[in-house]
Amino acid sequence: MATNQEEVKLLGALGSPFVCRVNLALNLKGIEFEFVKEDLQNKSELLLKYNPVYKKVPVFVHNEKPISESLVILEYIDDTWTQNPILPTDPYERALARFWSKFIDDKIVSPSFKSAFTVDEKEREKNIAESSEALEFLENELKDKFFGGEEIGFVDIAAVFIAFWIPLIQDISGLQLFTAEKFPKLYKWSQEFLNHPIVKKSLPPREHLFALFKGRYESLFNASK
Amino acid sequence: MATNQEEVKLLGALGSPFVCRVNLALNLKGIEFEFVKEDLQNKSELLLKYNPVYKKVPVFVHNEKPISESLVILEYIDDTWTQNPILPTDPYERALARFWSKFIDDKIVSPSFKSAFTVDEKEREKNIAESSEALEFLENELKDKFFGGEEIGFVDIAAVFIAFWIPLIQDISGLQLFTAEKFPKLYKWSQEFLNHPIVKKSLPPREHLFALFKGRYESLFNASK
Repeated sequence: MATNQEEVKLLGALGSPFVCRVNLALNLKGIEFEFVKEDLQNKSELLLKYNPVYKKVPVFVHNEKPISESLVILEYIDDTWTQNPILPTDPYERALARFWSKFIDDKIVSPSFKSAFTVDEKEREKNIAESSEALEFLENELKDKFFGGEEIGFVDIAAVFIAFWIPLIQDISGLQLFTAEKFPKLYKWSQEFLNHPIVKKSLPPREHLFALFKGRYESLFNASK
Repeated sequence: MATNQEEVKLLGALGSPFVCRVNLALNLKGIEFEFVKEDLQNKSELLLKYNPVYKKVPVFVHNEKPISESLVILEYIDDTWTQNPILPTDPYERALARFWSKFIDDKIVSPSFKSAFTVDEKEREKNIAESSEALEFLENELKDKFFGGEEIGFVDIAAVFIAFWIPLIQDISGLQLFTAEKFPKLYKWSQEFLNHPIVKKSLPPREHLFALFKGRYESLFNASK
């Protein structure tokens, strides 16, 4: 638990699923922290100082030591605060959790975003096919209530994009990528996950994000006309 | 240390820097293993069974349990065989090692390969600029003999691509991306690294790789004429 002497800060933006991962991990562990909201159109000196390589959020700062990259931050949080572990203890189970989290980053986040947010029809089709194939792999991987078993773990946290962001993108675009019919196990997981009290507390306000992404979506399609 | 009862296998191909990482980590820890050479033009049933997601090498198999993705495999090896640790013990140092290894994958491997292996002049220029900027970040990050301090660690292993593959690509293409003049600290590191007895033992034969990549390079440029 963070004491008064400790500085625990998260530089973030509400629209980012990567920031939400860190937020969720901190809440699952019961660590108090300060959320520093970044304006990504006008990045702060602090962000540029702490993440000169990518100049992106999230940046996690613990006693003036900055860390970037959401999965790296999750590992750090789990290494530093050992209560309510998010990675399994068994080395093979840990490896699988790392593999599937990286898989979500490499094969799901970008393609499923591009499935809606592109004006190029061929590009859209390609990305829909890629995301569907990737979601199918995850559907087959899910054995328990959560990827982490009975409790939310590393892969569940990484997969917040699937539970919260994909349905949002679908509502805006009319895309039918991730549905109960296509992915029954994964869909059931997403409902359990979204109803978890700590997840609820960690998610950004849906109406705010809806407006944000709808604005982007409309400007993309208006610009292309 | 692997006992006779243990199955420790590495499915790989000599040309892959990702396979070489695993090979090197196993040798640094003194773990005996069987190298199973894959023909990537004609992938084995075993490879398709063990890595159905990516169908790529390396695949590491420990007592019939397969793991893919080289950095995930390195973490598993370090979690399982604790002698000669490759990740630091301090959580912040661990986070930095993970960050820079991922950085090498995201910002160096593909751009520096494309700096030579592309027929599109604009694409080449873009990739040269990207790789140079990324190498500059690493140059500034290097504080000791190795990234791991006095001993070879996680980032050094990840960076085998820079020490061995980039010079090879340069010799084939005439590209001057990574030189002693441009990156003096990183170049010195590469010499120390390549002269380490266990690294020497773990690298693929240079003349074999030279022929392999030269063949690919020439067919790329002949095809484009």
